[in-house]
Amino acid sequence: MTSKEAKKKHFEAVFPSLVEDLKENAKQYNIPADALKWYEDSLNYNTMGGKLNRGISVPDSASTLIGGPLSSTDYHQTATLGWLTELLQAFFLVSDDIMDASITRRGQPCWYKKPGVGMIAINDAFMLEASIYILLKKHFKTHPAYVELLELFHEVTFQTELGQTCDLLTAPEDHVDLGQFSPEKHSFIVIYKTAYYSFYLPVALALHYLQLATPETLQQSKDILIPLGEYFQIQDDYLDCFGSPETIGKIGTDIQDNKCSWLINQALKRASPQQRKVLDECYGRKNAAMEKNVKEVFNELELQKVYLEYEDKAVGEIRARIEKIDESHGLKKAVFEDFLGKIYKRTK
Amino acid sequence: MTSKEAKKKHFEAVFPSLVEDLKENAKQYNIPADALKWYEDSLNYNTMGGKLNRGISVPDSASTLIGGPLSSTDYHQTATLGWLTELLQAFFLVSDDIMDASITRRGQPCWYKKPGVGMIAINDAFMLEASIYILLKKHFKTHPAYVELLELFHEVTFQTELGQTCDLLTAPEDHVDLGQFSPEKHSFIVIYKTAYYSFYLPVALALHYLQLATPETLQQSKDILIPLGEYFQIQDDYLDCFGSPETIGKIGTDIQDNKCSWLINQALKRASPQQRKVLDECYGRKNAAMEKNVKEVFNELELQKVYLEYEDKAVGEIRARIEKIDESHGLKKAVFEDFLGKIYKRTK
Ligand SMILES: [Mg+2]
Ligand SMILES: [Mg+2]
Ligand SMILES: [Mg+2]
Ligand SMILES: [Mg+2]
Ligand SMILES: [Mg+2]
Ligand SMILES: [Mg+2]
Repeated sequence: MTSKEAKKKHFEAVFPSLVEDLKENAKQYNIPADALKWYEDSLNYNTMGGKLNRGISVPDSASTLIGGPLSSTDYHQTATLGWLTELLQAFFLVSDDIMDASITRRGQPCWYKKPGVGMIAINDAFMLEASIYILLKKHFKTHPAYVELLELFHEVTFQTELGQTCDLLTAPEDHVDLGQFSPEKHSFIVIYKTAYYSFYLPVALALHYLQLATPETLQQSKDILIPLGEYFQIQDDYLDCFGSPETIGKIGTDIQDNKCSWLINQALKRASPQQRKVLDECYGRKNAAMEKNVKEVFNELELQKVYLEYEDKAVGEIRARIEKIDESHGLKKAVFEDFLGKIYKRTK
Repeated sequence: MTSKEAKKKHFEAVFPSLVEDLKENAKQYNIPADALKWYEDSLNYNTMGGKLNRGISVPDSASTLIGGPLSSTDYHQTATLGWLTELLQAFFLVSDDIMDASITRRGQPCWYKKPGVGMIAINDAFMLEASIYILLKKHFKTHPAYVELLELFHEVTFQTELGQTCDLLTAPEDHVDLGQFSPEKHSFIVIYKTAYYSFYLPVALALHYLQLATPETLQQSKDILIPLGEYFQIQDDYLDCFGSPETIGKIGTDIQDNKCSWLINQALKRASPQQRKVLDECYGRKNAAMEKNVKEVFNELELQKVYLEYEDKAVGEIRARIEKIDESHGLKKAVFEDFLGKIYKRTK
């Protein structure tokens, strides 16, 4: 077992006790047995099976911040906060799959696609979200940053919902209008829909837990992690088209799905009238030949080169910000270097 | 204008300033104009048009508790809390309509049925919920009961979701199985899905706002308001079948919709094998003749009489609990008498 696998196993081992906490909490309301089982099944089905990067990065960041291994209490507590980020993600994914009419998630049927679930999944998503606050109250009620933790989850949830609104309005799957796209909208969607909850939230949780959160340390973290999250999503968009399906484990569908991806926005910025015509006619259509035409325009415009130039520049700026951190206020450069190291030049 | 209408107008006049607060908050994130407008439209469409009883009962209860009219600040603050209960209800209704595949709500199309909305309504429901915590932070951050207010909304939200889970599992519209029903399940669904947020929440908010909330005053309120909420919902079930459509403003559909209503549970308890057969074959079918057969069984079993006996008994018990309140701890009998007065023997 690699150390990465061991880390994941260690983190996964915390979850069953949290499911027990949630079941105990529900039982106080004399919930009927079938409803209790339904809740438990949803908790397990919708949080497991992913990479758990967000969750694991809470204890990871905390350990880096204190400069050594966590005590077993600190590990359990920060891993619990990590699981809350995974519950938040589960809440978003269950509902996003309904809104996107998706079929599979993490190689299994989407929860709402399971026999007998259907639209009940909406209420299940709510209960995944509500579970965050039940566990916060149970495990952090006496923590000095309890209110800050509550407010952080509230704000990041709302930010993600704002990004989702913009995504849904900009790129409906059933109506293609490339005039709706712009690099500014792409940036807004990416930052709000993904970067806050995936990158900023785990580090902010570690800072609050260790009582190292100040307006300054939070702002400095945000100023690095939001661009990092944007870079991560732009990579994701790039790999969707130019990555190797064998390596990334799926075949990209952004072009056919009318996604407001970084690539189409770069293409629109550079396209000749003739190329624009091809994009208007072929983007967002469930048609392999049209998808190929779009990819040809992407190649004519040398978007792979454009991407590599963007990457160099973005990573250079992120590195410069990390370099400027004053470690005497409790932040550690290594927290951000670790994040960047996991992402830079990734192929999957 | 009656005093009831004036009260409603007064309460409604508070909402636009809350919408402004929410827009201001969203603008700090540089939200694109179309997304901001979408959010505003959802806020207005989904909170307006109802009776606003829940919301209005927060300042009403507060005024009764202090024994006189509220100062203008206290009115604005308690009306704000009232609007938060309406936002919570909006969150539940928008999503419940999707889960129930409903067509209309308050005499207009359901939000998700509006052209261009569809499943985006799921995210809109989330944003209605998130708006509660944005407004709590803006208006109550320095209130001594801020944490209690946050936890109260969290708990009542989860309780309602538990009730919704049980409702959805017990009475799926597409699969009739009366063996799933029981008076205990009916009671659980009604109490959790409706009574906590509709009856307990407004009074608990008023108590917290006035700093009269103690474990004792909250428990005494709960012990009265939860049975009162159950009685209210049983009335609702009764009126759906036996009320006058002209008075209640809609034609009841519980029988055709396979609802786990109080009436069917009473009928199941009393039915002969022959009558049970009719119920099994005819309940929950979209068929007027079958609905009529069910109603005949209800009449044979004299459910109107059963209801009136239940009402006498339930109201007697509620009155006895109100009578026992020790007003020296800050509670007032009149708070509960007002609630009961609005409900007792209502015909709509
Ligand atoms: Mg999706
Ligand atoms: Mg989506
Ligand atoms: Mg992607
Ligand atoms: Mg409904
Ligand atoms: Mg329903
Ligand atoms: Mg009804």
